[in-house]
Amino acid sequence: MSLEQDILSLGKRARAAARELAVMRTARKNSILEAMADELEARRDLILEANAKDLEAGKESGLTDAMIDRLDLNGKRFEGMINGVANLVALKDPVGRELSNWVRPNGLVISKVSVPIGVVGIIYESRPNVTADAAALCFKSGNASILRGGKEAFHSNCAIADAIQAGGEEKGLPPNSIQLLRTTDRAAVLPLIKMKDHLDVIIPRGGEGLINFVADNATVPVLKHDKGVCHIYIDADADQDKALDIIENAKVQRPGVCNAVETILVDMPIAEEFLPKVANRLLALDVELRGDKITCELIPEAKEATEEDWHTEYLDLILAVKTVTGVEEAISHIATYGSGHSEAVLSNNADVQAAFQQAVDASTVYVNASTRFTDGAEFGLGAEIGISTNKLHARGPMGLEELTTYKYLVTGTGQIRE
Amino acid sequence: MSLEQDILSLGKRARAAARELAVMRTARKNSILEAMADELEARRDLILEANAKDLEAGKESGLTDAMIDRLDLNGKRFEGMINGVANLVALKDPVGRELSNWVRPNGLVISKVSVPIGVVGIIYESRPNVTADAAALCFKSGNASILRGGKEAFHSNCAIADAIQAGGEEKGLPPNSIQLLRTTDRAAVLPLIKMKDHLDVIIPRGGEGLINFVADNATVPVLKHDKGVCHIYIDADADQDKALDIIENAKVQRPGVCNAVETILVDMPIAEEFLPKVANRLLALDVELRGDKITCELIPEAKEATEEDWHTEYLDLILAVKTVTGVEEAISHIATYGSGHSEAVLSNNADVQAAFQQAVDASTVYVNASTRFTDGAEFGLGAEIGISTNKLHARGPMGLEELTTYKYLVTGTGQIRE
Repeated sequence: MSLEQDILSLGKRARAAARELAVMRTARKNSILEAMADELEARRDLILEANAKDLEAGKESGLTDAMIDRLDLNGKRFEGMINGVANLVALKDPVGRELSNWVRPNGLVISKVSVPIGVVGIIYESRPNVTADAAALCFKSGNASILRGGKEAFHSNCAIADAIQAGGEEKGLPPNSIQLLRTTDRAAVLPLIKMKDHLDVIIPRGGEGLINFVADNATVPVLKHDKGVCHIYIDADADQDKALDIIENAKVQRPGVCNAVETILVDMPIAEEFLPKVANRLLALDVELRGDKITCELIPEAKEATEEDWHTEYLDLILAVKTVTGVEEAISHIATYGSGHSEAVLSNNADVQAAFQQAVDASTVYVNASTRFTDGAEFGLGAEIGISTNKLHARGPMGLEELTTYKYLVTGTGQIRE
Repeated sequence: MSLEQDILSLGKRARAAARELAVMRTARKNSILEAMADELEARRDLILEANAKDLEAGKESGLTDAMIDRLDLNGKRFEGMINGVANLVALKDPVGRELSNWVRPNGLVISKVSVPIGVVGIIYESRPNVTADAAALCFKSGNASILRGGKEAFHSNCAIADAIQAGGEEKGLPPNSIQLLRTTDRAAVLPLIKMKDHLDVIIPRGGEGLINFVADNATVPVLKHDKGVCHIYIDADADQDKALDIIENAKVQRPGVCNAVETILVDMPIAEEFLPKVANRLLALDVELRGDKITCELIPEAKEATEEDWHTEYLDLILAVKTVTGVEEAISHIATYGSGHSEAVLSNNADVQAAFQQAVDASTVYVNASTRFTDGAEFGLGAEIGISTNKLHARGPMGLEELTTYKYLVTGTGQIRE
């Protein structure tokens, strides 16, 4: 059987499983989730052995320390993975919520209810714990899942998927509800993302190359988890002490993530007073500053920024700094260079706050807070499949509810259309 | 300038307009809509002249009577087009609704509000009134639109777009809010549907060829308006008189539309009694019946159905008829052959109704009513951009609210992430 046929039959099996999952009761789903968590615990040694293989191969092939760290499942990581599955038991079932209902003049009763999406595909890179996480989230929301992990984590991913499937099936998980692509062949991705009849959505999580490849080649709908070029605008009416804390938090606390700040926009009237404070705070924390002309005059240590800097997601201790003549120029800069992820205004002026929140087109627009809160846990969603940079269907942090869609149930007494 | 560059600059201009539209107040939008409707009225003769050109060319090139009829803007059609625009004034602005809000333990206030999608592309076939309709719906929902009509309606579409733009701009419609592709070159479609940076969604409305081309080639998100292979399952516990009325209505009242029924599934215990009644009712209305073996035995006039029949959207006075052994087989048949559009169960048995509504995966699942109600006006949406066969973002009838997305407004007092 060819690889393409393999993928197709995987899809058909997933579709059949999805029909069973869509009507599964909450209590049953929860007992299956508990069994999955238990089996992960029971197979800890087995999974860590598989993980050790991946770690060894990774070191041999020269992965960076950061990549090796992301591969590693030892210690708290393993607990975190188990808890990620077990914690879903307590969360409300996102399926079967009545979103709205109304009665038509002809007596038809229309009810809009949440239902699973169906078959969800997820392509992700090195972290193997995503295998457990994504599978469990899709399952709780009534979806069958097809998982494609990174080749560096292949053995870990297989061992985790085995545990989840075996644990779940003991409690009645339909076979093929959760399927891992057990090949590292890159050629498997294309037929997967073109499988219109058997896959309802594909979620790529990873680097820009992966995401662009999926977006450009998929014929199934894509929910992108793309980059964040996030800005903080510091208005003349900002509380400058709080502003320094927020900028430091948004840049330094975890620079390698999509909701970290990449560019700050400083209102001209406070530039002379505020920019040296920024320099003072951030240079001591080893942050490199790249500024426009005025910034470079006020901060001798700053390098001159190029056009490319305004577009860049550094994911590093580098911050671009630009002076602007008020909130309108800040909004306009963000419209040109922002990626629609997370944007913040720091100001005590209500008009400035409102203008910024209304005009800026991004998943999350903050007033007087760090951009780092764009996150499922920080939003209180309980669990997160990722942060969508799509505008359609789901935008920003995606939890269980965002893994559902809806259908209309219309109940009549023999109505026909005139 | 190449065609591709042309399309790209159209997109850039649309993006700029979208920024203005996103923050436009409702009163202003409504006065612009009124001006658009007035200008359509003022230019009635001009538009009908352009329409006459299209009609003449259509007849010369041998369009079918049905296609000529769809092109024709005369009489009530013209009133309908004007009213379609004017009626949007009374509808609630779908932008700026607070969808939910909550407060986090750290004091952050999270508000989820509806916002326009941004730039919406619509590709449609012969009906020129869609130009006015789609443009006005996108505008009321705060979106810039890029319209691509059928080449048969080219002159009509240009005249309608001219009227709407001119009328709107008198009252402050930003230039480039509504742009019609003023070329009949088929090569214009590909750069349009690949314009990721400047187009947020593409909505194809038309035949299967168009929809598949767009779905297979677009890199921007697609909201499909695809075919409907709709079923009615007649349970042993159905009211048979009502069932006959519903089947007649769903097949005969307007056979050429996506929510018409294509296949009925008849519960075995009533087949012998009910199928001759179906034949009696439908053969008199010139409906051709294509049945499975049992059906053909009970209805001598029925032709034998092939596997292809179960897949087919006839859009014609043809009905496929199959006997099934209860609701489970009906559900299973629909899972295999249905297109996820509209499905109905006719039964007075609450368990059968519930099983069907829960298990059938379609935009709209009816109990004891005709499938023909899947429609914006029949749902009471006030206006309709079409009927989505997507599962993500919008499913079933799409009104103004479905032309919006959301963003999170998060308001703090200096919060930083721990």
